Amino acid sequence: MKSDLNNLMTERNIDALIVTGSSHANPILYYLVNGANVGEVTTVIKKRDEAPVIFANSMERDEAAKSGLQVVDRNTFDPLKLLNEEQGDQLRAKARLVGAMLDSLNVKRGRVAVYGREEQGAALALWNMVMKMNPAIEIVGEFANTIFDLARQTKDADEVTRIRSVAERTMQVVDQTWNFLASHRAKDNVLVKEDELALTVGDVKKKIRQWSMELNIEHPDDFIFAIGRDAGVPHSRGTDADVIALGKTIVLDIFPSEAGGGYFFDFTRTWCVGYAPPEVEKIYNDVLEVFNIATDSMQANAPCSRYAAMTNDFFESRGYATLRKDSKTTEGYVHSLGHGVGLDVHESPSLRDYEGNKDTLKPGVVITVEPGLYYPDKGFGVRIEDYLWVNPKTGVVETIGEFKKDLVIPLKQ
Amino acid sequence: MKSDLNNLMTERNIDALIVTGSSHANPILYYLVNGANVGEVTTVIKKRDEAPVIFANSMERDEAAKSGLQVVDRNTFDPLKLLNEEQGDQLRAKARLVGAMLDSLNVKRGRVAVYGREEQGAALALWNMVMKMNPAIEIVGEFANTIFDLARQTKDADEVTRIRSVAERTMQVVDQTWNFLASHRAKDNVLVKEDELALTVGDVKKKIRQWSMELNIEHPDDFIFAIGRDAGVPHSRGTDADVIALGKTIVLDIFPSEAGGGYFFDFTRTWCVGYAPPEVEKIYNDVLEVFNIATDSMQANAPCSRYAAMTNDFFESRGYATLRKDSKTTEGYVHSLGHGVGLDVHESPSLRDYEGNKDTLKPGVVITVEPGLYYPDKGFGVRIEDYLWVNPKTGVVETIGEFKKDLVIPLKQ
Repeated sequence: MKSDLNNLMTERNIDALIVTGSSHANPILYYLVNGANVGEVTTVIKKRDEAPVIFANSMERDEAAKSGLQVVDRNTFDPLKLLNEEQGDQLRAKARLVGAMLDSLNVKRGRVAVYGREEQGAALALWNMVMKMNPAIEIVGEFANTIFDLARQTKDADEVTRIRSVAERTMQVVDQTWNFLASHRAKDNVLVKEDELALTVGDVKKKIRQWSMELNIEHPDDFIFAIGRDAGVPHSRGTDADVIALGKTIVLDIFPSEAGGGYFFDFTRTWCVGYAPPEVEKIYNDVLEVFNIATDSMQANAPCSRYAAMTNDFFESRGYATLRKDSKTTEGYVHSLGHGVGLDVHESPSLRDYEGNKDTLKPGVVITVEPGLYYPDKGFGVRIEDYLWVNPKTGVVETIGEFKKDLVIPLKQ
Repeated sequence: MKSDLNNLMTERNIDALIVTGSSHANPILYYLVNGANVGEVTTVIKKRDEAPVIFANSMERDEAAKSGLQVVDRNTFDPLKLLNEEQGDQLRAKARLVGAMLDSLNVKRGRVAVYGREEQGAALALWNMVMKMNPAIEIVGEFANTIFDLARQTKDADEVTRIRSVAERTMQVVDQTWNFLASHRAKDNVLVKEDELALTVGDVKKKIRQWSMELNIEHPDDFIFAIGRDAGVPHSRGTDADVIALGKTIVLDIFPSEAGGGYFFDFTRTWCVGYAPPEVEKIYNDVLEVFNIATDSMQANAPCSRYAAMTNDFFESRGYATLRKDSKTTEGYVHSLGHGVGLDVHESPSLRDYEGNKDTLKPGVVITVEPGLYYPDKGFGVRIEDYLWVNPKTGVVETIGEFKKDLVIPLKQ
């Protein structure tokens, strides 16, 4: 939780955090400024045991103030004058500007860790220049299990409320999708619309986008509605022109966020319209079985890798190929068991089965559990995904967003 | 244009480019892979005089193939084995993975420049580790006027076609907005809906979002529909609860992109519903005058700063405050004259008035021209913005997206 930041800074001997970049698609900046739109070129500095300070473009001052944090107009440091003094050398001017901001908060030495999504080449150049100009400051770059990774893993009550709201709206969209498919008529083994033309993946995706918009949720990274072979390639988004044929697996993997940026939800069901072929049914039941085994056994504070290994063990015992056994397979079980979710669709902890995975189901963590089996050459794939939260009050691993796990969508007519 | 990349690499003595990161909100990656959705953890390497190669997650192979480029399954390098060998040290495992990818293309030494939006702290750690593990490779980070900045400045025919299409759809939305406002009735100086309740900024923004969706354009970074004092703060997005009062300035600044990511358009009009107060009218006419002076005089290959300086000269000669004269002013002319637009809303060239600004109106460049005057304490602001393209065939500076520049929206009833 955000309240962990100071302790993590102390543990890692970090004197200040700098977070920079645009408000758009920049989760750490969003997190630190409470979702305020602080523009495209913002610098936020948080000293240990102090509240963050936003250095915003003057034009963004009203939006930045919505963060509830102190806002300093970056024009105070006269960036245009710096640029003129440096004869238009943007790198030196920017490094001087950052140095002046740090100095204004009395950060003159020590370890300063940098975060925020930026063009990485520009970041390399900038932070090297800042260190050159301020030899008493060490710029620290964390790679994995960063201070923000750890803080963001566990969600506070307000975050969970927001996630629940996205989950509820997503469940409405999923329900609408089920009913929409069920309400169609089949002709020559394919769903058809009133005009007798085949219903397509594109038609369904358009509907899902409309329903989502009405409920004020967005798909910043699209969503998956894939049938047949596409369903057998885990991240294929689906092909608009594909028709909805009976008995083919449809993977609906939907990971919307609050409109305007914010918290993500993540959820998958696999369906067959009309009927399921026996081979698909068998595989579906195996995926559902391991899904239930993994989720039923989950306990607060247990290592994440335990459930990932358990899933590999199960699939291998049933004779399926796994990535653990064959790193090059594209059939069978070809991804991890799940991941944290929050301001990113994929964040820590990781439910991956590898040596040295130290992630645990800490109280407050939200994760997905999403086993799957894929057979692109046979034209099908199966994945079942729920969104779980380790309730910190009770230690119970709860599902957020409930929806039936039926494979077959029976037609109403 | 993309075809300039090889020459720019030669000029700067760069042997290979590496672009990494997520497909979402990562313009350089989008540019290099022709808009294909290559997932969240992709590495693309382009050697000088060779086509880019995509190292994609196996799950993303179908989407990556849509780029038309060679796709290599990153599982070929067995990242899980690397992670296990490094006892779960993700930094070392990732650096070895990148090293193996470079090695597979026979990049064993030389200058390798890195691009793509990433968490900057992680990028610092990764590229330092890659250099440590591969002492013959120098990782280069460019800060400004990068190879991609320069290539992206000038748009090819296909890019301009896509931009024109977004422009046409935006013009429809702007026209719908004008007509929507004009169709309302006023009561006690405020527009009211059929139910006699006041029409609000929130109502109008909702309509704009609906019309945009119907036309398949998106607002990834929102848009500005701001009235009164908010219109006087350039980047205020507007306050949903504000009512549409007659005689107040409304700034509509709309910068949509193609749905699913892609090229941006950028456009602003200032309106007063019913009537404009004389003070606003005077200021509007001055903004329009300098807009016309600047755009009428624009010539291919001229320095961008010329028009920025011209605008400052004009405003100062009329007695308005400018940032050039007073870096701390929040009244008067408080931003630059314009900027390039493409896969980012704001990219190079820059129409800023500073020493050493070497940007020019190269044939093929697209820019905005957007003078404005702001008086938040008086409760109004004015900005006029068009989108211009330097036609490389004729050298003529053309407007893309035409819409009348009337200040007052007369009510129809």
